[in-house]
Amino acid sequence: MRIGIDLGGTNIAAGLVDDSYNIVLKNSVKTPGGADAIAGAMDGLARSLCQQAGVALTEIKSAGIGSPGSIDAKAGVVVYSNNLHFDNVPLASLLSEKLGIPVRLGNDANAAALGEFHAGAGRGTEAVSSMILITLGTGVGGGIILGGKIYDGSNGIAGEVGHMVVVKGGAACTCGRLGCWEAYASATGLIRMTKEAIGLHPDSLMNGIAQDNGKVSGRTAFLAAARGDRAGGDVVTEYLSYVAAGTANLINLFQPAVLCYGGGVANEGQAIIDALLPMIDAELYGGGGNPPTRICLAELGNDAGIIGAALL
Amino acid sequence: MRIGIDLGGTNIAAGLVDDSYNIVLKNSVKTPGGADAIAGAMDGLARSLCQQAGVALTEIKSAGIGSPGSIDAKAGVVVYSNNLHFDNVPLASLLSEKLGIPVRLGNDANAAALGEFHAGAGRGTEAVSSMILITLGTGVGGGIILGGKIYDGSNGIAGEVGHMVVVKGGAACTCGRLGCWEAYASATGLIRMTKEAIGLHPDSLMNGIAQDNGKVSGRTAFLAAARGDRAGGDVVTEYLSYVAAGTANLINLFQPAVLCYGGGVANEGQAIIDALLPMIDAELYGGGGNPPTRICLAELGNDAGIIGAALL
Repeated sequence: MRIGIDLGGTNIAAGLVDDSYNIVLKNSVKTPGGADAIAGAMDGLARSLCQQAGVALTEIKSAGIGSPGSIDAKAGVVVYSNNLHFDNVPLASLLSEKLGIPVRLGNDANAAALGEFHAGAGRGTEAVSSMILITLGTGVGGGIILGGKIYDGSNGIAGEVGHMVVVKGGAACTCGRLGCWEAYASATGLIRMTKEAIGLHPDSLMNGIAQDNGKVSGRTAFLAAARGDRAGGDVVTEYLSYVAAGTANLINLFQPAVLCYGGGVANEGQAIIDALLPMIDAELYGGGGNPPTRICLAELGNDAGIIGAALL
Repeated sequence: MRIGIDLGGTNIAAGLVDDSYNIVLKNSVKTPGGADAIAGAMDGLARSLCQQAGVALTEIKSAGIGSPGSIDAKAGVVVYSNNLHFDNVPLASLLSEKLGIPVRLGNDANAAALGEFHAGAGRGTEAVSSMILITLGTGVGGGIILGGKIYDGSNGIAGEVGHMVVVKGGAACTCGRLGCWEAYASATGLIRMTKEAIGLHPDSLMNGIAQDNGKVSGRTAFLAAARGDRAGGDVVTEYLSYVAAGTANLINLFQPAVLCYGGGVANEGQAIIDALLPMIDAELYGGGGNPPTRICLAELGNDAGIIGAALL
């Protein structure tokens, strides 16, 4: 049994994970401010999970934390996190001192990819050993698993799939570059495209849906398209064409056995995979490899981060 | 001692490579038509190298072939090569039967990267074990070394760095996509930009240089810029900004210990590295990793392909 902790800017989620990668029990708390308070909250979560499950802390092999920001996994240090206001915080040792068991630290997106690889969309591909998880959320994140392990490069910060320019000189990205994939393939990008389309087509169903909901969301265009709205359908097609372009880039570079989508936009379900497949196929170099990359939805949702953290 | 063979559409180059990765002796012939004739020419090259060096074939541990096209390295088969008109050619066994020694086969760009990694720009970084070679030639090719080995993905065809879209909907690439990095960062892309600039600025030095040489080449804008021609300088800056954009994409994804440039454009020398470094730096996610990727020129030129093939 291991403990997996997914540290977010809003909540900390933790779970007891068994040797078959199942979450036996999970719980979450609001993320407090400050590193010590965060380590204290994690300690409390871990202890209460053990208590509820009737497991002694000494029976826990290790705990793992998936954290946002740039991570020095070897040292167990969050080098920098904008969200958490962390600057060189030795989070692994802070928690390890409290719990008295080994604690590992990794990037949250990488941990989620590791969880999906072993227990979700990547299950059964261990022989081929490569998977990319792309999270289409407020930003575009992801994690790369090569040879069955998180690939984080020579300095621990590789795998920034969202920060690949696909429209040189294009829309501003939060990272400071222009035209990053994240600026187009994120829910944020989709909302921008939806607003632009509503401006051009105020009579579109999108306008009514947005007014009913009080705002334009990442769902607005999808909902309108599902009801046959042409302008909504055009936004969805445009948005997915950006998702497809970056995906084809990643496949031409990595040729992973599996590539899966998570994050809020992936909640639209199998329909987006069905729409994406021919778009991606048309863009693969040499028509794609043999065997081709299997493209699918991620399966574990937020649990991927907990399971992956436990496996760090 | 091993034999490395770099199979090109025009020439076949082969060399005797010692255990310190030095080419002891090399030679080349024109590439004949047809798989059997090519295997025969390789056999002749290998035998004459051994004869000249006074080495018996039985003393050669193995031969390796770097071939263009998509390669099934395990099976020793060229699955498809447009240049060579090959379709499922078992090139390794064709040569092995003639030479009577083991023959390995790999993609030529990957072999060149392996050569640069062990004997050129990557020398001394074996501990970090990752390098990307980018060849800026007629196209943009390259090879990715991770964990000290060629990274070719789950199906053998990964690492197509040139076929990453950086300008969605942009210039047509030979691969069929629009806006691939290759369409901008290759000598072909540079020549297109130079021609466009000559059209806009017929009084530019570029025009005179092109007329003196009978054509616009990948050198035209660089030569004009070196003589202070403003329009030429603008072309060089624009071209390098595309090289920088794709390079930053690759670093954000891979964070390799070393990234080096080969191919004809890299013959412009250290000046292009000096111009590229600040451009790339400005585009790295989070300001780049620590330690940052070392960005430099490839060192071995065409020898990289021979040495790398010997090491396959």
